[in-house]
Amino acid sequence: MNFASDNGAGVAPEILEAIAASSRVNAPAYGADEYTARAQARLSEVFETKVAAYLVATGTAANALALAALVNPWDAVFCHEEAHIHDDECGAPEFFAGGAKLVGIAGEGGKITPPGLMETIERFPRGVVRSSQPGGLSLSQATEAGTVYRVDEVSELSAIAHRNGIGVHMDGARFANALVSAKATPAETTWRAGIDVLTLGATKNGALACEAVVFFDPARAENFAFQRKRGGHTLSKGRFLGAQMEAYLADGLWLRLAERANASARRLSRALSATPGVRLAWPTEANEVFVAAPIPLVETWRAAGARLHEWTTRSLAPENAPRKGEMLVRLVTSFETEQSEIDRLAGVCAGVPASAPATP
Amino acid sequence: MNFASDNGAGVAPEILEAIAASSRVNAPAYGADEYTARAQARLSEVFETKVAAYLVATGTAANALALAALVNPWDAVFCHEEAHIHDDECGAPEFFAGGAKLVGIAGEGGKITPPGLMETIERFPRGVVRSSQPGGLSLSQATEAGTVYRVDEVSELSAIAHRNGIGVHMDGARFANALVSAKATPAETTWRAGIDVLTLGATKNGALACEAVVFFDPARAENFAFQRKRGGHTLSKGRFLGAQMEAYLADGLWLRLAERANASARRLSRALSATPGVRLAWPTEANEVFVAAPIPLVETWRAAGARLHEWTTRSLAPENAPRKGEMLVRLVTSFETEQSEIDRLAGVCAGVPASAPATP
Amino acid sequence: MNFASDNGAGVAPEILEAIAASSRVNAPAYGADEYTARAQARLSEVFETKVAAYLVATGTAANALALAALVNPWDAVFCHEEAHIHDDECGAPEFFAGGAKLVGIAGEGGKITPPGLMETIERFPRGVVRSSQPGGLSLSQATEAGTVYRVDEVSELSAIAHRNGIGVHMDGARFANALVSAKATPAETTWRAGIDVLTLGATKNGALACEAVVFFDPARAENFAFQRKRGGHTLSKGRFLGAQMEAYLADGLWLRLAERANASARRLSRALSATPGVRLAWPTEANEVFVAAPIPLVETWRAAGARLHEWTTRSLAPENAPRKGEMLVRLVTSFETEQSEIDRLAGVCAGVPASAPATP
Amino acid sequence: MNFASDNGAGVAPEILEAIAASSRVNAPAYGADEYTARAQARLSEVFETKVAAYLVATGTAANALALAALVNPWDAVFCHEEAHIHDDECGAPEFFAGGAKLVGIAGEGGKITPPGLMETIERFPRGVVRSSQPGGLSLSQATEAGTVYRVDEVSELSAIAHRNGIGVHMDGARFANALVSAKATPAETTWRAGIDVLTLGATKNGALACEAVVFFDPARAENFAFQRKRGGHTLSKGRFLGAQMEAYLADGLWLRLAERANASARRLSRALSATPGVRLAWPTEANEVFVAAPIPLVETWRAAGARLHEWTTRSLAPENAPRKGEMLVRLVTSFETEQSEIDRLAGVCAGVPASAPATP
Repeated sequence: MNFASDNGAGVAPEILEAIAASSRVNAPAYGADEYTARAQARLSEVFETKVAAYLVATGTAANALALAALVNPWDAVFCHEEAHIHDDECGAPEFFAGGAKLVGIAGEGGKITPPGLMETIERFPRGVVRSSQPGGLSLSQATEAGTVYRVDEVSELSAIAHRNGIGVHMDGARFANALVSAKATPAETTWRAGIDVLTLGATKNGALACEAVVFFDPARAENFAFQRKRGGHTLSKGRFLGAQMEAYLADGLWLRLAERANASARRLSRALSATPGVRLAWPTEANEVFVAAPIPLVETWRAAGARLHEWTTRSLAPENAPRKGEMLVRLVTSFETEQSEIDRLAGVCAGVPASAPATP
Repeated sequence: MNFASDNGAGVAPEILEAIAASSRVNAPAYGADEYTARAQARLSEVFETKVAAYLVATGTAANALALAALVNPWDAVFCHEEAHIHDDECGAPEFFAGGAKLVGIAGEGGKITPPGLMETIERFPRGVVRSSQPGGLSLSQATEAGTVYRVDEVSELSAIAHRNGIGVHMDGARFANALVSAKATPAETTWRAGIDVLTLGATKNGALACEAVVFFDPARAENFAFQRKRGGHTLSKGRFLGAQMEAYLADGLWLRLAERANASARRLSRALSATPGVRLAWPTEANEVFVAAPIPLVETWRAAGARLHEWTTRSLAPENAPRKGEMLVRLVTSFETEQSEIDRLAGVCAGVPASAPATP
Repeated sequence: MNFASDNGAGVAPEILEAIAASSRVNAPAYGADEYTARAQARLSEVFETKVAAYLVATGTAANALALAALVNPWDAVFCHEEAHIHDDECGAPEFFAGGAKLVGIAGEGGKITPPGLMETIERFPRGVVRSSQPGGLSLSQATEAGTVYRVDEVSELSAIAHRNGIGVHMDGARFANALVSAKATPAETTWRAGIDVLTLGATKNGALACEAVVFFDPARAENFAFQRKRGGHTLSKGRFLGAQMEAYLADGLWLRLAERANASARRLSRALSATPGVRLAWPTEANEVFVAAPIPLVETWRAAGARLHEWTTRSLAPENAPRKGEMLVRLVTSFETEQSEIDRLAGVCAGVPASAPATP
Repeated sequence: MNFASDNGAGVAPEILEAIAASSRVNAPAYGADEYTARAQARLSEVFETKVAAYLVATGTAANALALAALVNPWDAVFCHEEAHIHDDECGAPEFFAGGAKLVGIAGEGGKITPPGLMETIERFPRGVVRSSQPGGLSLSQATEAGTVYRVDEVSELSAIAHRNGIGVHMDGARFANALVSAKATPAETTWRAGIDVLTLGATKNGALACEAVVFFDPARAENFAFQRKRGGHTLSKGRFLGAQMEAYLADGLWLRLAERANASARRLSRALSATPGVRLAWPTEANEVFVAAPIPLVETWRAAGARLHEWTTRSLAPENAPRKGEMLVRLVTSFETEQSEIDRLAGVCAGVPASAPATP
């Protein structure tokens, strides 16, 4: 019953096989190989436009480099106040962007709202030298609350940003999970909705270590190769990034893996919601489930072997906030989550003894 | 006949198998896994002292982060004028070290000499505010010229550095190749010879993407976890770094792989040296061979399918420098280099037609 | 009726004379002069402890360098959400501190409260690598709202910071104004209340361009000379900074100048408060007056020649916030503000025509 | 006999009076004042083209900010190996330019030569990602050796730079001294000879603390106001920079001050050259005199009260290098140097006892 993190999963077999296969040849170094070239071409197909795409090994790098390409050091980057880039990357965006300022915006369910964005932008008047300049907007898709921006929500926020001369980044560490949830095409969810640069995660969804930074306007990527290199993010055996991304996108693997994780999350969400005393904090729209539950119940889950994280947030409507005696917890599913793990936790919820797992 | 780069090789089977095996479990994220713990413990054993070791995916990151841990932003880092950190990392050390200044020191065969180091240090007087401060010394082992510092050479340079309050880094992108060449133990070659922090490369020598930053005084690593994280170099599925390094060090695999590459280089070196008109630029002490050869001869090699790089250097004694009509070239071997590749190039040298490879 | 900024004032005659006098000699460059030495000694006397003090020409530099000396690049700096360092320095602290993250804390009247500080610190758990680390607390004294922290307020906030291993900076751009208002000694207001490093402003209060960075624990200043130099803030003719600071502190000049500005602010505050429809936003405790006033009345003031700034803030209790038809404005006094300017604005408030100034 | 530094001088009376005069008014803050506007307009007149000019208080800031505006963080900046920006600013250019790499070029008499520049540029191939990119060329005028580039020398170097897509900076800390020496117009010496951005020093030549960063193509200055602000180099009472620069340029004051210093240097140079055993290291073309002299003679000078610096350099032809028993020394004159100081040193050289100064 491992619901601690989708980073705990291994590598999808198709991707592992692609790595092994690409290891059998001698390939040019530093990304000049054919695997990378094919992955890049595939990304242009997937997004139905000519993109400039660069592969790196971590989501932190992908986000920080993408933002560094988008903004100046004297700029502000607007994001949700609990965005991963703001709270969970130890200042990596500030480091790569030369000291740019991340500005958090409050919003329920991990989402920035148009009024919240507009009010915040107003505090950073363009051309006023004492002020950090409005430089970038970063949207997390799926959000830190496991919710998914609808296409029209992305469009509206992007439009506000663009009207104010602000470039738009999407942190898609869980982009595939959001995509299959939104029932929209990759193009619709991104550049057609105003996204300028996307961090497309693969690691949490089945890769070993691979993320793509996708520029929908290749001109924005002019200096990216230098920025990536001096960030230490140009792999010498770059073909292994190419091979992962190629396999990830081949035959819809990425969508199948994401749908599997999402389906597990929906089942888990239903099981927990049906448990007396347990309330969903936010709707389960991707592969994360957040519930407020009585502390003793959570202890029972843990005693039965469930791994999950206590959660704190400022992004919760008062009526959904944990009350006295309750705890907010996060449960994450992955492409590897087994039906049996969910059944077992459901059994614990239903009072089936932990020592007798529902499925062996 | 691929002698272009040791980065062109794939992954050693033992390491690929370790990756696949570690993929089968659910493991804690961000390096808190048992594979990483075992790799770290193994590094302490290998170096016969308690080290603080951190794994990253690229040599650029390992070097830049190691230097950033060693020096202040207002410091100078002394290195050979053709050191990889100075010439080939697009300013990564400067980026990570907050704008520290790399100062190149001339020296034949890629080596810094004690007088060269002392004269250079004198130009950076400690405590004189207008001057960058003497902060770090970086030695490449093996060097960019394919030579290997002897233990006593390392000791002498380190002693000069330490007397001047300067920490010492070793760029061991090809550390294993140097080690088996030097016929000394890992401890003798490093901390016993005054090295404070080592970049221990595995990628060029059989890993997929894995390097260790090894601090011989763990106190120096106090902030390294934060520096690595904000550099985007903390892999979410960190167990794959741990698994690589564990397999690399297990049962002397790293030494066998390095010896295989070095042996190929020696054979190649002998074959080329025996060819009329070809002169070795520097002794072949690791897995790189540098020769000055008549341009038409090099063209013959290339026409026969040999992949190699033309080389420019300021690190060559005049008597060994390419003369009119000659070209300096670099040939690199790896653990994957086949005897047949060397035989075939030897055959080309000996006038055997390229269309008839010596070994099928 | 110039109430736009205390930066509009000239130089106090005593300081201008000190500049002229120090110009008549040939003095060692870069701060090795006797004027600077005397100013430093005087600062130790004024603060009743041996301080390490460095002079620079701007408040932005003083703040940014002080913070850079206090925190690591991977740290968070806690400050009021409307602190000058956060809102008005174009990211200078982030630049100098290598990308550290400024974290704003809400609080009425420009002040951080103990609960606000504690809740914020909790969001940055020490040792958790994904999180920026709790590094610094910066208190503005006087605040951006023209209020002054009481000594016990400073002590309580500093104690919370220190308990959490956090260093404490005071942005004293208007330190003298706060000091004469608080009726405490320089020592009581700073290091005895837990301040580790103070930006002591002189420019707004009568200097040409001079601020001191004062370290109460000289060990913290170990590298400051290098940081200042590479920031370009070491003046070649450093004696002119020394001469300004020496004159500023001589015979209590700084306190007299500040008291003059504060007294003007109090008079102005009384005159405005007495005007029907005008409400003080916050108590007038230093040399800034903030009032909510009917827009037509503000227009009358401006038409009469008053220079002042419209103000926006999130630091205002709802009952004091501007209502429909009102505007929040800031009026600043300086040591040069004339009684006649205040009388004249008071006259305008009282309906005396602007074309007939109350005092000629 | 103060020949230690031109930074030891005070402020020229005309400039001090301008400061005092501008102090008598209330002026807009942060450079929005009329003094600054007039200084900027005057700079456009002086250079016979519309320039974008920004004033700062130090030469370190002017140089570092100018370079940061010219190059990317992943670029190399080419300069003489003993350039002030490389050797004497504690890494300020690296700090402001985000970690750009300064690359020193050897050259006699402090000058870069066309072959030296071309060979160096070749080591930084454009578009090759592992390499720092060719970004900027910085010429010191006058040089660190007290020599002056002729207009055609500047033109030739600039042309090489521009052909390679490299912007050209001139470090004119002693620009006025070079200008009156070169007998060319400001325009001829700068933008007509290919300079893109000039650091125009005033401090060493009579100002209190004032340097201008002059962009000959205003488009290059697009972000400069932000870069200056976050560097802490936007003075709140900016009118004092404006007043200094306005007075400096008024009625040719800057040229008269520089000619006075240069004339003193020529006299000093003649007196020293005529002394047996003393040899000029480089021609005296601005306000610095470098001589190799017998150590006992230098001791005599010092005993007589002469203040001067021992010098070390790699920029000296072998025939001019100090021999055994000799010392290389630098003597600097300023606009304040008195004829009597030179006469007195000349007297010491001629054997007149130090206790009886030639002029009282």
